[in-house]
Amino acid sequence: MNKENITDFSKLLATFPCFPTVLVTCDENIITLALIHIFSFNPPLIGIGIAPKRYSYGLINKKKEFVVNMPTKNLLSQTNLCGTKSGRDTDKFKETGLTKETSKIVKSVAIKECPVNLECKVVKEIETGDHTWFIGEVVNGKIADDFKLEDTVLYWKGLYRSPGDVIKQR
Amino acid sequence: MNKENITDFSKLLATFPCFPTVLVTCDENIITLALIHIFSFNPPLIGIGIAPKRYSYGLINKKKEFVVNMPTKNLLSQTNLCGTKSGRDTDKFKETGLTKETSKIVKSVAIKECPVNLECKVVKEIETGDHTWFIGEVVNGKIADDFKLEDTVLYWKGLYRSPGDVIKQR
Repeated sequence: MNKENITDFSKLLATFPCFPTVLVTCDENIITLALIHIFSFNPPLIGIGIAPKRYSYGLINKKKEFVVNMPTKNLLSQTNLCGTKSGRDTDKFKETGLTKETSKIVKSVAIKECPVNLECKVVKEIETGDHTWFIGEVVNGKIADDFKLEDTVLYWKGLYRSPGDVIKQR
Repeated sequence: MNKENITDFSKLLATFPCFPTVLVTCDENIITLALIHIFSFNPPLIGIGIAPKRYSYGLINKKKEFVVNMPTKNLLSQTNLCGTKSGRDTDKFKETGLTKETSKIVKSVAIKECPVNLECKVVKEIETGDHTWFIGEVVNGKIADDFKLEDTVLYWKGLYRSPGDVIKQR
């Protein structure tokens, strides 16, 4: 193993393999995001990173809530569409054929076809470089009875992946 | 698909499949983390979430720097050990047999056996619930000439995984 010093940061950031990829709804819009992580377990906080130029940025900034909808591999074309078109000029529910589902606590709709829906209320906003991270507290959640972890979708640098084989148990 | 409302938040957070898992060094200590994400591309910022009770929290809080070392699947036992023992009472380099490598810009050592090393200087700290997120700017990086994305390691809820098959190209 011979290591090279790299100054091209996009090459360095491309060494991360893949991240969970979700459909985030706010109001009646959808955006596909891989910039998402769990920020705290107690209280349960989820953060999502969105560039201020995005249509969803303005929506979430105004509504102070969002829903994390987990797509499965059978929803890949819809997931890709929601990550490439803007809600400014596209009704993404209409274009993808996905179905609006009323949430229990927040006003934003969830996506019926997604087996997991996490309703979040924004408790903090963090500006870091070219993205703003909205930190949301999970106030309600739904899981489908036939949900399988193996059907979820990961993404990074142009490639969608399945979660790989388990190689070790802790 | 029948959906149930779930109020057990640990069940909801367990619906995320897996996250990239790294070995973070600060000073001469190692901690294994899955709470890591890219926070910004320009400038290149990486955030890591650490509970304040951890030994690494005090170190990073004091030194204001860290190195992200990407383990490969042949380093799974070392990765697991660094995530289960505390640096308070363990010299993890000694116990794992991993080798210290001098960094180019930061003072903290990197891990020689890891094919990717990202040197970071802390530019921001964010308190969110039970974790503090240290946001670091990538100031230098190394990539091994034989680095393969498929050899990296993902983790969540007790299971280490490989990145799965590519199921769609964007």
